[in-house]
Parts: sequence; C-alpha cells; structure tokens
Amino acid sequence: MHVAMIQDKIVPMEELEPIYFDRGIYFGDGVYEVVRSYDGKIFALEEHLQRFANSLAAIKIAEVDIDQIRSRVLKAFDAASISNAKIYFHITRGSAPRDHICDANLEPNFLLTVTELADDKKTKIESIAVSTHPDWRWKRCDIKSLNLLPNVLARQDAAKKGCAEAILVDEAGLITEGTGSAFFAVLGQTLQTTPLTSNILPSITRKFAIEAGKNVGLEIVEKSLTPQQACCADELFIAVTTKDIVPVVEFDGKLIGDGKPGKYTKLLAQEFCSFTS
Amino acid sequence: MHVAMIQDKIVPMEELEPIYFDRGIYFGDGVYEVVRSYDGKIFALEEHLQRFANSLAAIKIAEVDIDQIRSRVLKAFDAASISNAKIYFHITRGSAPRDHICDANLEPNFLLTVTELADDKKTKIESIAVSTHPDWRWKRCDIKSLNLLPNVLARQDAAKKGCAEAILVDEAGLITEGTGSAFFAVLGQTLQTTPLTSNILPSITRKFAIEAGKNVGLEIVEKSLTPQQACCADELFIAVTTKDIVPVVEFDGKLIGDGKPGKYTKLLAQEFCSFTS
Repeated sequence: MHVAMIQDKIVPMEELEPIYFDRGIYFGDGVYEVVRSYDGKIFALEEHLQRFANSLAAIKIAEVDIDQIRSRVLKAFDAASISNAKIYFHITRGSAPRDHICDANLEPNFLLTVTELADDKKTKIESIAVSTHPDWRWKRCDIKSLNLLPNVLARQDAAKKGCAEAILVDEAGLITEGTGSAFFAVLGQTLQTTPLTSNILPSITRKFAIEAGKNVGLEIVEKSLTPQQACCADELFIAVTTKDIVPVVEFDGKLIGDGKPGKYTKLLAQEFCSFTS
Repeated sequence: MHVAMIQDKIVPMEELEPIYFDRGIYFGDGVYEVVRSYDGKIFALEEHLQRFANSLAAIKIAEVDIDQIRSRVLKAFDAASISNAKIYFHITRGSAPRDHICDANLEPNFLLTVTELADDKKTKIESIAVSTHPDWRWKRCDIKSLNLLPNVLARQDAAKKGCAEAILVDEAGLITEGTGSAFFAVLGQTLQTTPLTSNILPSITRKFAIEAGKNVGLEIVEKSLTPQQACCADELFIAVTTKDIVPVVEFDGKLIGDGKPGKYTKLLAQEFCSFTS
C-alpha cells in the first residue's frame, strides 16, 4: 500500500488532498507576483501581469490565460474590500506524484491572498539598515520563481545583524539587488542601479524609481556597484512593491551621509507618491 | 477581510488548511531525502539521515530530532509493506503568513511518502541517453533543498531531446552532475567524477560507486570533466539512489564506445548489488 505520513500520522496516499503533491512544494515549480493597492486602486497591475506571463513562459507553464488571472485578482480584491491591500498570487505546474518530468496537460494550481498592508509611513521616515550577503541564487533571477531559499537565508542573516534587508553581492564582488527589493545609490547628480540582466528581477518599482529619478533631474546610470562604492554614496535606498522607496541609512554598519534619509531620496519618494495617487 | 483564492474559489483566509501557507511552497524553504529498500531492507538509511541533518543545519531549521525522523521512516515503511520501496521525505520550516522572516519557534512540517519502486533491471540493461544543459542552480547544491526548478527545467529540456537525464555544465564549461544523479566516466583504468564542493550534492550513491570502483581495481580521479572529455570516454554512467548505476551510452547525440553498456559499468553495477543485498 502506498502510504503518506504527515508529522506522525500515517494515511493512505490517495486520501491526501492534491495540495500535498503540489509541484510548488516538491520543486518550487511555479512563479508568483505581488501587487498592491493604494486607496482602493491596484497599482501597475498590467505591468505585473505582463511580468507574470513572462515568468510563466520562461518556465514553460503554458495554457494560462492572463485575462483570467486579471479577473481573479480583481474579483478577490473586490471581495476583500481592503483599500491598502497586498495581493500575492502564484501558479505552480500542478499536483502530481513527485517526478521532475510530468504530464504536459497537468492543470496548474493557482493561489492568491489579499491581506491588509499598513501604509508604511513609519519605515519611510525611520529608514533602514542593510547588510550584505553572498548572492547564492540561481542564474535566472529574471524569472520570479518560487525558488527563494537563498533569499530567505540572506534575510535571516540580515535580521540577525539587526538589518531589515540583505543586499546580495555576486562572485565578481558586485551588488545585484536586495532579497526582495531593487537597490539604488545617489552619487552627486546621478542615480545608479544594477543593469537588467538574468542576474536580477526586472523590478517594476525599479522602473518607476528610475522614472522618478528622471523627473527630479537625476542622471540615470545602470551599472553595478561594489559594496565599497555603496558605502561612499551620498544616499542609498531600496525600492519594493509593498513599500515604494525606503531610505537606507546604514550599510554593513557604516552610516550613509549623515545617517538620515537623503534629500533626493525624499524627493523621489514624493515623486513616487504622485504615480500612485 | 483577508481572503484567499484557490483556482476560481474565494475563501476566508482563516479557513484554509496550514498546508496552503507552507513555506515549502512559498519559498522552497525546506530540505528532503530519498531512500530506497531492496527486498525489505532500507539501504544506507544512516547516511541519508546524516545528510538530512546536515541539510537542516545548513538552512538553520533547528530542533529536529533525527531519531524521531528515523522512527517515522521505519514506521511508515513498515505500514506500507513494500519490499522494493522508494521513501521520500521532506521537512519545511513550517506554515506561516508569507514573509521571508518567520518566528524561530515555528513548527516544521514533515511529509513522507512510501511508494513502490520497480526494480529497474530494464533501465540497467537498456541504458540511457543524456544531453547537456547549463547548470542554472544556486551556489549551495551541497544542500538537498526543495529549490529544484532549474533541475526540472533541465530535465524537461532533456526529455524533449529524447534523453532520460540532463547533465549540467557550469559557467566554466565543466560538468557538475546530473539533475538527480552523480555523473561518472571510465577512461582506461580510471573512474572519474566531479569532486565534492558546494557545487554538487554529496551523493550517497556516488560514494558507493567510488567504493565499487576501488573494489574492481579502478583508480579514482575526482576531477571535473568537460562535455568534450565525456564524449571521448570509454564508458559513462550515472549513479542515483532509486536506480543504482545506470549506463549512459549516448551523450549529446554521440555514441559512447560501441553504444552498449561498458565492461566496467557492468562490473560496477554487479559490485553495487553486493552492497545492497
């Protein structure tokens, strides 16, 4: 008899719900998105749906109708009635007995959650400290996949050091991005961030932060920074869907500027607000 | 109201089973093992439990009692009454609302399955073809984690080419291992395989294959091969828990030797049987 065991309990395998055999859990064989709303309006949904479609195509999960995903997002957002909401959704290749290879016709599994998002004015004002960690992630970080263990480990390490985010550094000694954020430095009149390659996520908040930078008259430089260069920057910040622009005032224990959110970072955060309101 | 959505169905979030919030699915935040039995006897269980303990320690899932895991394996194996069984088990950091950081006291989730394993004499005789794929995996492949999407993608690619396994090649142009197997070449009187680093899994079948190699008088060389060197080898094989030693007779479309399982490969497979019976 094929049996399964959950904690200490033995059950016939066929009695387990399909979720227990989700390829998301066995392999991280799925992709996800996080979108948010401001005052009842979802921000940049089309950009997120387009990226979701790109991620699905990259891992060859076919037959997902993005119009259907959009409808589901809107329906659940409506049902939740939360004006500042965090909407998380993922699709996995489906549930099946564990095997790397599976039936191409497997029905994908969809999960979505809508939760309340405190509008993080506190973080924006107080700003954060970050620490660096080796970038252990896979070579296709442009795909927003469920393989996030290296991100979890780096964040745990940062938390132990009292930091709110880990900034990942690749084998060449260059900063890629945060575990869940894009990373930016202001140096003089330039706004510098990692160029888009398969080593980082094509972050949507990154795109809007660059847009904001142009609007306030900064020159945009897409070139990787070393941790040493980041330490000497005039200002640092991270950009993340759920928190927009968050000032970084401490980097690996070193104060950035005078240890307070910089002039441009505050300007960019204001500019960002104009996109979302 | 916090809501969740499963396929098209909206449900209050608190009504969902904890398995839906398993960090295994959100992040691949867990580790696993696969052991097998031969004629009612589990093979190398202690080695697998030791590696499982190492994986748990590496990702800092604490408080797991390996004696308890052993008891669970034996109890489930006993309940299943399958003499040639495949036993899969994993532990994830637990179920919690999605956040990279979680409560250190979260209770880990354990899942185990026991299924029948056809003793793969057919594969052993017929042997397999393999194809190469870039090694996209993370930098800690020594940890047997649930982050297996690159393995899935490489295996899918191999299957499309009519191959049973993908052999991964790193950025330096060197073979690391298969997506679910260790990779070996016989060149003259030497048995060559990738050295143990954080780039490959410390495979238990690899260890026994090396042991078998010594027993049949081969010199062991732990040095990475290029695909070009593999193509020119006298014999190739993969080593995997569920199938022992499997001859590889075609590599990226090129026949190895005379296209039949080699002399040493057959000797090693016999030798391996002596360990397991």
